[in-house]
Amino acid sequence: MASRRQALLLSSSNCHGYNLLEFAKAEISSFLQRNNVKDLIFIPYAQNDFDGYTTKIKNVIDQWGFTVTGLHTYPKPETAISESKAIFIGGGNTFLLLKRLYKNNLVQLMKSKIDDGSLIYIGSSAGTNVATKSIHTTNDMPIIYPPSFEAIGIVPFNINPHYIDKVENEEHKGETRDQRIAEYLEMQHAAPVLGLKEGAILHVDGSKLILKGVNGAVLFSRSQKKSEYNVGADLSFLLNEI
Amino acid sequence: MASRRQALLLSSSNCHGYNLLEFAKAEISSFLQRNNVKDLIFIPYAQNDFDGYTTKIKNVIDQWGFTVTGLHTYPKPETAISESKAIFIGGGNTFLLLKRLYKNNLVQLMKSKIDDGSLIYIGSSAGTNVATKSIHTTNDMPIIYPPSFEAIGIVPFNINPHYIDKVENEEHKGETRDQRIAEYLEMQHAAPVLGLKEGAILHVDGSKLILKGVNGAVLFSRSQKKSEYNVGADLSFLLNEI
Ligand SMILES: [Ca+2]
Ligand SMILES: [Ca+2]
Repeated sequence: MASRRQALLLSSSNCHGYNLLEFAKAEISSFLQRNNVKDLIFIPYAQNDFDGYTTKIKNVIDQWGFTVTGLHTYPKPETAISESKAIFIGGGNTFLLLKRLYKNNLVQLMKSKIDDGSLIYIGSSAGTNVATKSIHTTNDMPIIYPPSFEAIGIVPFNINPHYIDKVENEEHKGETRDQRIAEYLEMQHAAPVLGLKEGAILHVDGSKLILKGVNGAVLFSRSQKKSEYNVGADLSFLLNEI
Repeated sequence: MASRRQALLLSSSNCHGYNLLEFAKAEISSFLQRNNVKDLIFIPYAQNDFDGYTTKIKNVIDQWGFTVTGLHTYPKPETAISESKAIFIGGGNTFLLLKRLYKNNLVQLMKSKIDDGSLIYIGSSAGTNVATKSIHTTNDMPIIYPPSFEAIGIVPFNINPHYIDKVENEEHKGETRDQRIAEYLEMQHAAPVLGLKEGAILHVDGSKLILKGVNGAVLFSRSQKKSEYNVGADLSFLLNEI
């Protein structure tokens, strides 16, 4: 059966020139409304201050007419996710986030529920990394060892959030973002990498993938040079090619 | 028994204003001469073109009066390391490098030989990351899953190579290097992090640690704000504190 997945994958929650999540307000609101969702569970695992982080997100999204609750306030995370219709996983550190998702037995549970259409997903930054095939192309430092780099796998490719093609400093010899991604693409197991610029949103709707938000994306693959995509681009081919 | 470790840990092989490894020529040459070493095994595991990478390094270091051979040209890496007196591990991708070191059973072997003084170590960039306690503070993307983030452990703390405190771009909301290191320091298992600026060399000599090269370092720890150290600084306290 075809996947009934529904997701909004944000490059980040912050975008230059906007308040927190403001650039994504229309997309998130209509995504939740279309799916008849009023209540959203926020998963603050990518950071350590669960209460503070949840409050920051709640203060924004509740004003849009929804009700945000932190997953950490439920006695059993597994049960809470089983019974919820929508989740938002925020950014922070991808390794820490994935470690905690595995520890709480949420990775496979989320994948099944998303595939059968009973759970819709919003992710930002690290929350977008863990939505993809694997976390191989996170920008974060590996501050804790997760049981695997494989992730929820809503889409069968990788995403690099906060994508930027500038070099840090012309006199600095550290690798650029493109060089880091090229290192990944040399691996036999490498999937294509979609670099989401800040402000970009990938809308996953069953077998359709559309680029939304206020900024575009860049696609890297083993066989081709990088290609640029603007807001509105149809990237559905990425769901079939692999 | 006190460790008889001898190592030169370079932030990188390239430094602005110098040809490859040129900034480290005097240190590497005298390090090898003091230890009566003429032959050096180069370990190109952090990159994929073993021959090309080894040739690049050999072309530089052989001119200084030593003989470089690639580890990949030996039939058994374990035997080659067992019988060698000096190794140089070059940069590339830290995850790929550590994965290959574990696969070839070299991590524990190197540690024992370095501790008993029968092997001296030169590392650069990724080769410096794997020399420390763990690879938690590499800048590289996690392109392949290693069996552990724990590494050779010549020193009981972490290093961040290519350390730079500039932000990538003022309009970009991605994390700065200092923020990434701060995320690590929030972990219970975090060790201090020495950020080696490009051109910096950490000289490990038994119970002594001296900063050498042409650029300094920055120390981050859980209890203190960051502190700057110039070339010549004695960092031996980092071997005791932990
Ligand atoms: Ca992050
Ligand atoms: Ca590298």
